[in-house]
Amino acid sequence: MARRSRILLEPIGFVCTKDEALEARHADPVSKLVLSEKYANGLEGVDGYSHIFVIYWLHKVRKSERRHLLTHPDHDPRWVGVFSTRHPNRPNPIGLTVVQLLERRSNVLKVRGLDAFDGTPILDIKPYNHRDIPEKIRAPD
Amino acid sequence: MARRSRILLEPIGFVCTKDEALEARHADPVSKLVLSEKYANGLEGVDGYSHIFVIYWLHKVRKSERRHLLTHPDHDPRWVGVFSTRHPNRPNPIGLTVVQLLERRSNVLKVRGLDAFDGTPILDIKPYNHRDIPEKIRAPD
Repeated sequence: MARRSRILLEPIGFVCTKDEALEARHADPVSKLVLSEKYANGLEGVDGYSHIFVIYWLHKVRKSERRHLLTHPDHDPRWVGVFSTRHPNRPNPIGLTVVQLLERRSNVLKVRGLDAFDGTPILDIKPYNHRDIPEKIRAPD
Repeated sequence: MARRSRILLEPIGFVCTKDEALEARHADPVSKLVLSEKYANGLEGVDGYSHIFVIYWLHKVRKSERRHLLTHPDHDPRWVGVFSTRHPNRPNPIGLTVVQLLERRSNVLKVRGLDAFDGTPILDIKPYNHRDIPEKIRAPD
């Protein structure tokens, strides 16, 4: 089996937001996803969805922070593995958030609920549909 | 603002499955996510979750197929943008699936519902929690 060991990605666009909102831990910040103009057609029909997944690159994570494998979840003194958390420090610092889609204008999406800094590179956008909701889930408190 | 134009990832592991199940379009195939042994600790606590997100690299997509921006959703003759579908052909061929976590043994997770080929590079694993379920969603039929 051929095993690819290095994968090269290019951002499809960048997050545009006022970082102040994030610093104040605004619960539901409104941001813009500004795609490269060449990708505008790729958004055709996206406004049929109320929610989308945004997959992005956590560009502020330093190389050394990618080596941490254990971390603390919020308000919890126990150590858990990074793959059991949404912590940004992880081997591949990829962010994933379900956001509400407020508006599409050509290559720009206005969304609510993205906890990402201004300038964050966007890797992919996918529609959120009913298959993304399991019948019943179990998660720690 | 510094704009990163190239992002380099390394797989944290690979999917291990019997492709026959996929070819038969088995609704809920069981697969193994075999992480590199060095990442085993990163899975500590993951079995507290019934479901996880698997983010993977669609390694069978050819370079030329990454340029397509319009496609057909299943059973629909209309053209829509790739970012309005889960089609594998997209600028960054990243796959995202919510799977049921059946078992963890050290660096190996047994999961149900991953529609990915044997040998697929895994980029990240994240726990699925209640915040990933919007209150109310709207999606085309």
